[in-house]
Amino acid sequence: MGVKEDVQKPLDRLSEALASDMEAVNALIRQKMLSRHAPRIPEVTAHLIEAGGKRLRPLLTLASARMVGYDGPYHIHLAATVEFIHTATLLHDDVVDESRQRRGRPTANLLWDNKSSVLVGDYLFARSFQLMVEPGNLRTLEILSNASATIAEGEVLQLTAAQDLRTDEAIYLQVVRGKTAALFSAATEVGGVIADAPAEMVQALFDYGDALGIAFQIVDDVLDYGGAADTIGKNVGDDFRERKLTLPVIKAVALADAEERAFWQRTIEQGDQRDGDLEHALHLLARHGALEAARMNALNWAAKARQALTKLPPHPIRDMLSELADFVVSRVA
Amino acid sequence: MGVKEDVQKPLDRLSEALASDMEAVNALIRQKMLSRHAPRIPEVTAHLIEAGGKRLRPLLTLASARMVGYDGPYHIHLAATVEFIHTATLLHDDVVDESRQRRGRPTANLLWDNKSSVLVGDYLFARSFQLMVEPGNLRTLEILSNASATIAEGEVLQLTAAQDLRTDEAIYLQVVRGKTAALFSAATEVGGVIADAPAEMVQALFDYGDALGIAFQIVDDVLDYGGAADTIGKNVGDDFRERKLTLPVIKAVALADAEERAFWQRTIEQGDQRDGDLEHALHLLARHGALEAARMNALNWAAKARQALTKLPPHPIRDMLSELADFVVSRVA
Repeated sequence: MGVKEDVQKPLDRLSEALASDMEAVNALIRQKMLSRHAPRIPEVTAHLIEAGGKRLRPLLTLASARMVGYDGPYHIHLAATVEFIHTATLLHDDVVDESRQRRGRPTANLLWDNKSSVLVGDYLFARSFQLMVEPGNLRTLEILSNASATIAEGEVLQLTAAQDLRTDEAIYLQVVRGKTAALFSAATEVGGVIADAPAEMVQALFDYGDALGIAFQIVDDVLDYGGAADTIGKNVGDDFRERKLTLPVIKAVALADAEERAFWQRTIEQGDQRDGDLEHALHLLARHGALEAARMNALNWAAKARQALTKLPPHPIRDMLSELADFVVSRVA
Repeated sequence: MGVKEDVQKPLDRLSEALASDMEAVNALIRQKMLSRHAPRIPEVTAHLIEAGGKRLRPLLTLASARMVGYDGPYHIHLAATVEFIHTATLLHDDVVDESRQRRGRPTANLLWDNKSSVLVGDYLFARSFQLMVEPGNLRTLEILSNASATIAEGEVLQLTAAQDLRTDEAIYLQVVRGKTAALFSAATEVGGVIADAPAEMVQALFDYGDALGIAFQIVDDVLDYGGAADTIGKNVGDDFRERKLTLPVIKAVALADAEERAFWQRTIEQGDQRDGDLEHALHLLARHGALEAARMNALNWAAKARQALTKLPPHPIRDMLSELADFVVSRVA
């Protein structure tokens, strides 16, 4: 893995190039997360939104719109919408996963309670819809409301598929497209649509976001078995403890002998986990080269993302997005 | 209280008058609650949507649109949207309230789990936004997304205000406008907007929905201390056990002496409830005429609802809506 300072550069460069746009997005977010009547709302929202997230998704919208020559005001609203959808999703995810840590800090459900996380998440969803109505563009409304439905569908699918050893790579991809890539691809696509870019450019933007999102999620799933708590903001083995069938485990299960299969059945399907099980899981992943194979998948998706960009006109931001694709997988490169 | 068969008539008459529209709404709901990938979604949704709810809110949209002469197709989408928002809200409410019964049946969070309720609720929210985009009318989008934000805000406000004895009738009204009346008034308002009715008629429709929603919620809160489990689909005293400061209790607290105040502090604020406390609470409500006073408030709001209708042109459906206002309060009349 690269040195942290080094690998952060592409995202920082993108942030810098879009700094004044991003400032406008942040101002809009701060304005819209207020609530006249319920102070709990900005408290919970600020905890998450100000937690030093990279604002990757709204940056994708801003970058996409700028890259195809948009100079109107509405990419700001769409970027803020995307961040609100993302934040609402995080709040609900942490309730569903019973998480205790996010980005290295205690989760909202731990600091306040599940009720606040559910209801403030609902508020942010509703706010995101108010925001996306403002540009008055029906196509972006359609894309973003479709993405919201796909995200929720992916999460429900994960709920039922996660602890089922029959889950294969095709189902995994569907879950990942839902829970992660749908918002990435919507973020890039609406940037093109609001700029009224030609259909093939909009498609290229969609493809970039889709591939980037998939690469991003695979990296996350690989790091869960191999990163350090201080770099990933959560603990090694969280997915294992939460009995999530992520790509590395799916690959190891596909190559498992009878004894190994019994191990995965006990630990993931039945949730009967004992001391030393995480270490044994890591051993099995290594035996079948599962982390390495998942890592290769991530690199392939990053390459697809870069490939999609070649269908867009040359632009400094295009180069940054290309580097961003490398950056996303650099944590496992 | 009236005889059950008798008081149901106005709502049944309205359902009958709008039967073919409602059939289209039901078909659209069934179509949109499907999920290609996640069968858990229609399972949970069907449990709630097919549970014999009266479809009161979508009926309000259909009635409003028809009453002002709409003959296009889109009131169907808006009515389905309203029902989806309502259903999503119920799913999340039951998680937040840790409810075990709804409409006389076990809740989804009990039959499946909280996770499914949270995520399927999110899916229905997203679906509702997809649905409301279809008519391509930006004003109805604005109204319905505003209503969603107001609902969530009302729920969060209730979370913080519910167990605080300083909560007065003004705050109660704000909570009720949020959690209940916002969707009633949005339901009626969008019916007028999609029909392109004049501004004063749209305002009258809004006012009717607002007053009807407030009356409806006050009745609910009164019945919680006075109804029978088989007519209200939940148990007497649920609000007391959940430490909710509803209108009857707010009125009793306002008139409480020191000893009574200490009782409410212990049972509602501190949640220290013992055998016989519910009976004592009922005794205090009776001593101060709190249920009777809340009942009068409900009747006043029903009268306001009927009053609003006088600004609309004569129409058989208008008469039914007027009777509906009486029906809503007839359970406590």
